[in-house]
Amino acid sequence: MGAYPPCIDVAELENSELGQSGGITQQVHTKLISRARPVIFTRTMNPDIRRERENATFNPEILTNILDGNVEKTRRRREIESLVISDPDFQHDDLNFMSRSERYDAALKKSTLMIQKLREYGIADPEEIFFYKRCVHRGFPEPLDLHLGMFLPTLLNQASPTQLDTFFTPAWNLEIVGTYAQTEMGHGTHIRKLETTATYDPSTQEFVLNCPTVSSIKWWPGGLGKTSNHAIVLAQLYTQGRCHGLHAFIAPIRCMKTHQPLPGVTVGDIGPKFGFDEIDNGYLKLDNVRIPRENMLMKYAKVEPDGTYLKPPSDKLTYGTMVFIRAIIVGESARALSKSCTIAIRYSAVRHQSELQPGEPEPQILDYQAQQYKLFPLLATAYAFTFVGQYMSNTYHRITGDIDQGDFSELPELHALAAGLKAFTTWTANSGIEVCRMACGGHGYSRCSSLPDIYVTFTPTCTYEGENTVMMLQTARYLVKSFRQAREGQRLSGIVSYLNEPQRLQPRPVSSRPTVVNINDLNSLVEAYKIRAAKLVEMAAKSLQGELQRSKSQEDAWNNSSIELIRASDAHCHYVVVKLFAAKLSEVSDTAVHTVLSSLALLYTLHGVAVNSGDFLQAGLLNVPQLAQITQRIKALLEEIRPNAVALVDAFDYRDKMLNSVLGRYDGNVYENMFEWAKRSPLNRTEVHESYYKYMKPLQSKL
Amino acid sequence: MGAYPPCIDVAELENSELGQSGGITQQVHTKLISRARPVIFTRTMNPDIRRERENATFNPEILTNILDGNVEKTRRRREIESLVISDPDFQHDDLNFMSRSERYDAALKKSTLMIQKLREYGIADPEEIFFYKRCVHRGFPEPLDLHLGMFLPTLLNQASPTQLDTFFTPAWNLEIVGTYAQTEMGHGTHIRKLETTATYDPSTQEFVLNCPTVSSIKWWPGGLGKTSNHAIVLAQLYTQGRCHGLHAFIAPIRCMKTHQPLPGVTVGDIGPKFGFDEIDNGYLKLDNVRIPRENMLMKYAKVEPDGTYLKPPSDKLTYGTMVFIRAIIVGESARALSKSCTIAIRYSAVRHQSELQPGEPEPQILDYQAQQYKLFPLLATAYAFTFVGQYMSNTYHRITGDIDQGDFSELPELHALAAGLKAFTTWTANSGIEVCRMACGGHGYSRCSSLPDIYVTFTPTCTYEGENTVMMLQTARYLVKSFRQAREGQRLSGIVSYLNEPQRLQPRPVSSRPTVVNINDLNSLVEAYKIRAAKLVEMAAKSLQGELQRSKSQEDAWNNSSIELIRASDAHCHYVVVKLFAAKLSEVSDTAVHTVLSSLALLYTLHGVAVNSGDFLQAGLLNVPQLAQITQRIKALLEEIRPNAVALVDAFDYRDKMLNSVLGRYDGNVYENMFEWAKRSPLNRTEVHESYYKYMKPLQSKL
Repeated sequence: MGAYPPCIDVAELENSELGQSGGITQQVHTKLISRARPVIFTRTMNPDIRRERENATFNPEILTNILDGNVEKTRRRREIESLVISDPDFQHDDLNFMSRSERYDAALKKSTLMIQKLREYGIADPEEIFFYKRCVHRGFPEPLDLHLGMFLPTLLNQASPTQLDTFFTPAWNLEIVGTYAQTEMGHGTHIRKLETTATYDPSTQEFVLNCPTVSSIKWWPGGLGKTSNHAIVLAQLYTQGRCHGLHAFIAPIRCMKTHQPLPGVTVGDIGPKFGFDEIDNGYLKLDNVRIPRENMLMKYAKVEPDGTYLKPPSDKLTYGTMVFIRAIIVGESARALSKSCTIAIRYSAVRHQSELQPGEPEPQILDYQAQQYKLFPLLATAYAFTFVGQYMSNTYHRITGDIDQGDFSELPELHALAAGLKAFTTWTANSGIEVCRMACGGHGYSRCSSLPDIYVTFTPTCTYEGENTVMMLQTARYLVKSFRQAREGQRLSGIVSYLNEPQRLQPRPVSSRPTVVNINDLNSLVEAYKIRAAKLVEMAAKSLQGELQRSKSQEDAWNNSSIELIRASDAHCHYVVVKLFAAKLSEVSDTAVHTVLSSLALLYTLHGVAVNSGDFLQAGLLNVPQLAQITQRIKALLEEIRPNAVALVDAFDYRDKMLNSVLGRYDGNVYENMFEWAKRSPLNRTEVHESYYKYMKPLQSKL
Repeated sequence: MGAYPPCIDVAELENSELGQSGGITQQVHTKLISRARPVIFTRTMNPDIRRERENATFNPEILTNILDGNVEKTRRRREIESLVISDPDFQHDDLNFMSRSERYDAALKKSTLMIQKLREYGIADPEEIFFYKRCVHRGFPEPLDLHLGMFLPTLLNQASPTQLDTFFTPAWNLEIVGTYAQTEMGHGTHIRKLETTATYDPSTQEFVLNCPTVSSIKWWPGGLGKTSNHAIVLAQLYTQGRCHGLHAFIAPIRCMKTHQPLPGVTVGDIGPKFGFDEIDNGYLKLDNVRIPRENMLMKYAKVEPDGTYLKPPSDKLTYGTMVFIRAIIVGESARALSKSCTIAIRYSAVRHQSELQPGEPEPQILDYQAQQYKLFPLLATAYAFTFVGQYMSNTYHRITGDIDQGDFSELPELHALAAGLKAFTTWTANSGIEVCRMACGGHGYSRCSSLPDIYVTFTPTCTYEGENTVMMLQTARYLVKSFRQAREGQRLSGIVSYLNEPQRLQPRPVSSRPTVVNINDLNSLVEAYKIRAAKLVEMAAKSLQGELQRSKSQEDAWNNSSIELIRASDAHCHYVVVKLFAAKLSEVSDTAVHTVLSSLALLYTLHGVAVNSGDFLQAGLLNVPQLAQITQRIKALLEEIRPNAVALVDAFDYRDKMLNSVLGRYDGNVYENMFEWAKRSPLNRTEVHESYYKYMKPLQSKL
């Protein structure tokens, strides 16, 4: 069974059904309870955390519904989660007590079971599959991730009808298990320089696949090392003596009967990483591996039997997937950060330490301003990113409709926005998780806190699907281009329309400028973020121009303006986030929830001003006395949010089993459970470790 | 054997003996070579990294000597390192391929061997033991750390002569293996609230030790779980019905013959952590464990046979060790960051990616301004912290002399400085390591980069030996006290003497104020940091005063000023760092080294201004146009440092075996070695993983 002794399942039940024990929400409780399992009111809930919930000024259930989308979505998500959590097939020992090979084994077991059960239950909606999968693997990656998330979708999008007939059903039935082998040892984000080749041989009507150098070995694809028997290989296509750039080929890599690597195929696991123990990221070296002509994915580009190459009709067709994945990552940033905040804030509510008043009992550490100043801006950020994630997902789905009808007009803006926001949110969440961990004292460092796992599982998002610095520069390219268009008299629309307003952008001395910001007004602050972004885009454009005047090439000028360009992108993304957070407030009708979300939005916004005060002073948007007022206002907001902090993380609605954190337990009973967890550590299997007999005892007799 | 195939040992040799292959240093080379092993000039060095070394403008050997202290110290350090590296007893497989139990086993084996060999070689100087130990364990913690670093020293400092006779020799001979059990599950930094009790029973002349609650279980001490048979237990002393606060007791916890836990003792490993796999951090629950009266450490405080308590003569006596350890941690910050920079900069010199000019070969990623802007300020920080570490260590040793003569006058300042600098440097290094890791692309995430290990081994320094936020507030307390003393007319001396200058601290509108900073002059910038610190200390003091006027208690006023207090400490520490870096330059006589260190010092200082520009604008130390000039100056410095970047990390002089990083290899041959490393991954022991037969094959027949 899982990490907790049976007595605690009562609180687990409470967590799932009674996540709303604030006084004002008793009605909701009763309703929920009446349609749920019989409830035993636990007597074990930590009194501090119970009091926190009683003192909340809003009903977290309403907020949960907003986060899920609506009441029905919350209900269905919980229903699916319960399916998994109550399923004895998915129980196992704590992953932290296993070796890497055991963790891979456990994950593959769950993945294969999951495929069967999803079919059994008839769960087919992508969002519902996602809920189910996330719950089965508790947020960890798994060996079939790329089969389900890349291999099958790529077949659907890029295979010809004949190819679909050949490959899809076996892949659907897991006879073919596939991965997507793009990244090579020497190239990740800059895919044009991938070195693997596919050379067409018309005499046999085959492609010959080769990884001609060490750096061209396929490296990193998930599930490639041990799990997959096929891979979609991205390779430079050569036919009739010419290179036609990257194309996708289906390469069998292991025997479908024995699972042994095929001739010419060197395949294996790339070794331990910082996390991702459940997944066999792999390498693949191909030496003169021949595949039939029909194994090139030919929905768009084609190679005819004689070797004639036919171009694809448009190169924008693969654009959308990239945007979609980056939009998803924005949501993952919110998720990683909201989990971390849940753990750190709940633990801070039950942990007592040090003293505020001599002789008084030790206060909850959540009462320390320094602790609030660490955690509450991150809590606000988690909400902000959740709403940004919703926006990105909705916009993607809206634009996808247009794309299907051949209208690509909104895609460049969304593409630029997804790139920047992917970088902006992952960097912020990445450092935020660590702030949460360190806010838990030493115990945050224990694997039982779950915070190390959240970090190592999340941090690769800063690099994969587009390295963050490259992403920021992509967004900057769009911003500078838009800025130039506006200067040339074009009227910009969409989110960059603020670059239309040159009158706002003249620098003036700080003191002579009328203050434009009302620090108590969210809309005024959003306006200030907008002007800051406009100002920094202008500075980046001017830097580029200046470099060009020093008779540099376009490329050198671009490289020598990177600092300004990245700053501009960052400011643009920050503006988008505050704007979307403010916009979300208008959709919230419940007064109590509106009030507390407004405090969070204002805190997020003012904290950003304080951290970047140089920019706002420089742009003449703030004056010096306002800086001190902002600090005071932030302090007042910390006090406002304090009584609702636990309810605000409860609203994220992570069950104990999914959070898997002793520190973040819903019932707050941290220490006794930490002791129980530690007793099960592999080093405690024997009282005396064998190394004592091997090294210590012999030495004692010698010295 | 280690992580690399035999052919690479040639480069390893080069690394150890030829770390200075710049053109101008050929003489030094020849000298070194002549007294070393026969040298085979490797043909395998990556040409990019060779060219970097040829183009350096200074001799890294001279800089290495400065970092070590002098030429002789460099020689001796290398001699000791060679002893370990060439010792076949200390070779083993890559730790990343082992389970936690195997890693503990390997570490204990090396620890016990190390004790024997140190005696064999007669290495007794603490610094030399430190070199040896660091090399044996490659910077990882080890099971005897607390025995050597806390148990033995505490005996020496706090045991009476009789107690020394009883305990020291057995401990020296490892019959007694001890740890230092202070931290409890519920209390770390705030030790006054520790709950473990030692109650004196005069009828038997024994102390009765108890951990009365779950939160009072001793938790975290290194070596406690499985290794130690004794612990120095910190407990609240009760005698004659009164509590006399924390005292130290020697408690036997395991049988010295069988190593089984003694009656009343529950002891074990606290379970897996984020790193520290080699060490058995443990728990200890004591239930009515009786120890003789003589087991209380009685050099200072005493309990007489009848239970009469005798106070210690001074409570400042344990103060010094704390300062010493924090000073050491400042040096560890420098070390962790310099290792990370070595890896990231060397890899950035051999990694080619993307394009600056269309059609041209891919440039080294070190040529990207964005990459330089990530790494060079961190490189400068690594140098800055190294010099601060040297200063702290020297000052400690100087002041220790005074303390031995009963002069404690300089201790409070050093104590406050050590607290703040411990927090300032560990936080900076902690995030800096991760920037270095992410600057290596996906491969930084592989365990073969060593960056994940550097991070998880370093990050606990932010929490242990005084939690960082608490440390910052301690420093703030000293600063505010000093500020008040100055306002009351006292003349401050030492590092806080800048608080004597009130005329500098009047805020004025930014534009009307004459600019005080010359951004090209290091001394002028140091002055600006000083005024910024003074300004922020004043703001913190005013916040405190304001809170008090709102009729709050001292304690509430303090809590409600935490944000300003921490900012003040941070600015103070930042000032100290730039001041010490600037001061160090005056000691450097070699012109070429002086030039390159000056660029680093200016970069460190200007980068700090840019990041905290709001503070400098607010204090009227900068005007808006200067901000753009600073960006330009920073860019120029990046270009200046670029040709010396590899030589600057070479000067840190980490051998490949100690760095243990495929990306950071001295010879730059990254990719072929990454492939060799991956092939040895445990998941590659069989071509087909057993889970295929268990889950995948049965499923394929079912679907």
